[in-house]
Amino acid sequence: MKKTVQELAAILGGTVIGDGTREIEDIKGLQEAGLEDITFAVDPYTEYLPQVHAGAVIVEKEVPAGDNTLILVKNPRLAFSQLLVLFHPRQTVARGIHPTAVVDDSAVLGDNAAVMAYAVIGRNVSIGKNCIIYPYVFIGDNVSIGDDAVIYPGAVIHENCQLGDRLVVRAHAVIGGEGFGFATNEGRHTRIPQIGNVKIGDDVEIGACTCIDNGTLDSTVVKRGTKIDNLVHLGHNVEIGEDCFIIAQVGIAGSTKAGNHCIFAGQVGCTGHITIGDNAVFAGKTGITGNAEGNQVYAGYPMQPHMEWKRSQVYLKHLPDMAKKIKQLEKKIAELEKKTAE
Amino acid sequence: MKKTVQELAAILGGTVIGDGTREIEDIKGLQEAGLEDITFAVDPYTEYLPQVHAGAVIVEKEVPAGDNTLILVKNPRLAFSQLLVLFHPRQTVARGIHPTAVVDDSAVLGDNAAVMAYAVIGRNVSIGKNCIIYPYVFIGDNVSIGDDAVIYPGAVIHENCQLGDRLVVRAHAVIGGEGFGFATNEGRHTRIPQIGNVKIGDDVEIGACTCIDNGTLDSTVVKRGTKIDNLVHLGHNVEIGEDCFIIAQVGIAGSTKAGNHCIFAGQVGCTGHITIGDNAVFAGKTGITGNAEGNQVYAGYPMQPHMEWKRSQVYLKHLPDMAKKIKQLEKKIAELEKKTAE
Amino acid sequence: MKKTVQELAAILGGTVIGDGTREIEDIKGLQEAGLEDITFAVDPYTEYLPQVHAGAVIVEKEVPAGDNTLILVKNPRLAFSQLLVLFHPRQTVARGIHPTAVVDDSAVLGDNAAVMAYAVIGRNVSIGKNCIIYPYVFIGDNVSIGDDAVIYPGAVIHENCQLGDRLVVRAHAVIGGEGFGFATNEGRHTRIPQIGNVKIGDDVEIGACTCIDNGTLDSTVVKRGTKIDNLVHLGHNVEIGEDCFIIAQVGIAGSTKAGNHCIFAGQVGCTGHITIGDNAVFAGKTGITGNAEGNQVYAGYPMQPHMEWKRSQVYLKHLPDMAKKIKQLEKKIAELEKKTAE
Repeated sequence: MKKTVQELAAILGGTVIGDGTREIEDIKGLQEAGLEDITFAVDPYTEYLPQVHAGAVIVEKEVPAGDNTLILVKNPRLAFSQLLVLFHPRQTVARGIHPTAVVDDSAVLGDNAAVMAYAVIGRNVSIGKNCIIYPYVFIGDNVSIGDDAVIYPGAVIHENCQLGDRLVVRAHAVIGGEGFGFATNEGRHTRIPQIGNVKIGDDVEIGACTCIDNGTLDSTVVKRGTKIDNLVHLGHNVEIGEDCFIIAQVGIAGSTKAGNHCIFAGQVGCTGHITIGDNAVFAGKTGITGNAEGNQVYAGYPMQPHMEWKRSQVYLKHLPDMAKKIKQLEKKIAELEKKTAE
Repeated sequence: MKKTVQELAAILGGTVIGDGTREIEDIKGLQEAGLEDITFAVDPYTEYLPQVHAGAVIVEKEVPAGDNTLILVKNPRLAFSQLLVLFHPRQTVARGIHPTAVVDDSAVLGDNAAVMAYAVIGRNVSIGKNCIIYPYVFIGDNVSIGDDAVIYPGAVIHENCQLGDRLVVRAHAVIGGEGFGFATNEGRHTRIPQIGNVKIGDDVEIGACTCIDNGTLDSTVVKRGTKIDNLVHLGHNVEIGEDCFIIAQVGIAGSTKAGNHCIFAGQVGCTGHITIGDNAVFAGKTGITGNAEGNQVYAGYPMQPHMEWKRSQVYLKHLPDMAKKIKQLEKKIAELEKKTAE
Repeated sequence: MKKTVQELAAILGGTVIGDGTREIEDIKGLQEAGLEDITFAVDPYTEYLPQVHAGAVIVEKEVPAGDNTLILVKNPRLAFSQLLVLFHPRQTVARGIHPTAVVDDSAVLGDNAAVMAYAVIGRNVSIGKNCIIYPYVFIGDNVSIGDDAVIYPGAVIHENCQLGDRLVVRAHAVIGGEGFGFATNEGRHTRIPQIGNVKIGDDVEIGACTCIDNGTLDSTVVKRGTKIDNLVHLGHNVEIGEDCFIIAQVGIAGSTKAGNHCIFAGQVGCTGHITIGDNAVFAGKTGITGNAEGNQVYAGYPMQPHMEWKRSQVYLKHLPDMAKKIKQLEKKIAELEKKTAE
């Protein structure tokens, strides 16, 4: 496919600065782009533009760009995403139900379903239109899923879970497994049956090998628009708000509730039964040890406001110096004491 | 099903305080319970009881409870668990071997087996009675499993492993994969074949996507009653005692031995070749850097006794203040020195 | 199989000290070995040799060994590995393609393939000779894999990935899943399609439930000889050099580049878009917060050179003492001030 820079700018609602008649054939990274390619740049990478020789570069505002034609847009990353879909449309998938798929007679699939080899779909399952179910996907009894779901190989969705539209579940994610709850009596642990489910809103993505346990009696909840990376653990009765990011290897213990637009960076660990406000941001590896107010950035273990944590780290580096100074002071005082005693 | 409060108290061996004739139809959470429901409360939640309007509440001791009928028991959590099983018996599973399951002729399954679609069971496998094997479970050659096992979709049990009665293995757990052992020669790594197995005692549960590697020559061991959460890693030749809790995303390196009744909270990491005593407890994210005596609580990285760690954290917060004081002292001493030199 | 100590020494290119005529039947651990077994010992375990009664012990240099016959070799661990293969050759696997495997007509498999039950192999896949593909392995369209690959149950290799010779992929590893990239507009996140792939060099091993995401436009890369443990996460466009070790539960964020011979110990977390030099070593749980020069050992969060980190930890323990000393100094100075004011 070929498009002129001007045509692409029109698609993006952007403004051309330079030669709009150039023909663009592909979209590439900043380093790889040649004269037939469009690319994008955000700060601090825009400073390399004079060395780049692309067909066009999507940017947020006019910058020195050598001989590159620019397209100015409000959100270069979003524009880039739009052109990726344009130049590299998602591979089409054969529709229909593979003869080896085991689909219970009571299951209802919407129009245009693709159910691949060896998928297993249980009783009273309901899935919307345009779903793509890859091989080895297991969907338990009474599960409901909205329209346009893509469920990758080996994902497991246990019984009674309710999932929204445009769901993405990556390979080997496990949704609705029984939560980790035990009653201990004389040192021995007896499982407390976990009979709740998991409810997932629209536009949620769930990463590979991520595990979301079911609620004890009620639901574990992930709300609309939240994106979850690989190898994440959400315990029973956790509630995550809308439009959050939960990055790889985060673990959140049972019954914790997080607001909207929170960001949990990689390997954050969060204790159970606490509340986290809207727009809270946790740096990588933060150990969330108690309630966290919203609109703040946190770090460290135990968790502190990020600025305090940073300050502590600076003082930590001065510790050997402080210890030395204390020794010097002790010496000086001993001398002074001697002098004044004379 | 309906039961009177008195009937339920009899089942639990508990004492009714209030109206024992009320009829109970279900078991619910403290907030959701209505007059037809039984619920339970432990401290600190018992203080909310005057606002609760349930049919009955299971508690440990008499507390102000408004118009609620109480059932007093020794272990409310255990009683709650018993009634959950009563009101919500586990969904029955169709028995028999699905025609698509690939079961080797030499495998022996006990009575009342449920082997679901696409399970693969290897040579000389032996599984006890009442087992439930979900789809895509892979059981390698020479594996033996006790009675009443439940193995969820996609779990992998590699060859030669020996597992006990009432085993629960959740989705995509991997038991007996080859341990991570290499001989390095001139900077290149050659695998040391790991030819041991994994031995799991009775009443052990293993979480989703948890990986337990096999021993190099001998066995990696998890003893009776230990419960393991999701996404845990146990390296080769690890030994875990009885009735331990290993919470989500814990990693324990090769050849470490832990005693009985230990608790590893979420994201704890443990170095290899060390020994951990009975009843040791590790707070979330603890980095276990050496041998740990039993009957202690630990935290931090490097690991410290919990009280010491907490004290360090308090002093850490005072660091900026300490630095300021040292400066003041330096100033005062300079003045004193000046004065005494006069 | 029986071999004399002399025969085994010849195989290993080692030197016998003691009785070379003894017959050896098996290879065992130091504690388990009897007179018919060979074992090996490296420091500090060599000091136990006088209490060991094995047929022969592989060591690096002559040590007091009681009545044991020794075989001296350059690398005892490597020699041990060689004898393990000799005494315990890998179980042979039936060759051929299982009738339930779904292999696309356009896929090309080399000679001597073993493709087991329920494997799914897509369009235009190319796999070299002697491959072993276990049940439930999913190989997407256009994947290429070299010779002598072993791919364990449930591993997922997404479309377009390129993998080398002697590849080992353990159960439920996920290679080439779509990277975690979103454009955020007015608080809502839109996926940036990730259209790149994963390239894996020769002699790479990938652990169970490890997830390696694909590149956004280009490739995520793991080079020759690198060994990856279980439950590891590598983000999009990560590049890992040759002969590295990445231990269990490590997470490396997008676009980070690591050199050769690096070691990431368990639960290390690494931020994105940074550069790590050759031979860098990171202690367990290190939080890699910025570029790291090679030939250094690092620890802590935020990351410090290991020696500095250790020193900080020592000073941390002295904090209560330092606080006490500051108080004493304050008191003494107050007294001095009083005295000199008199």
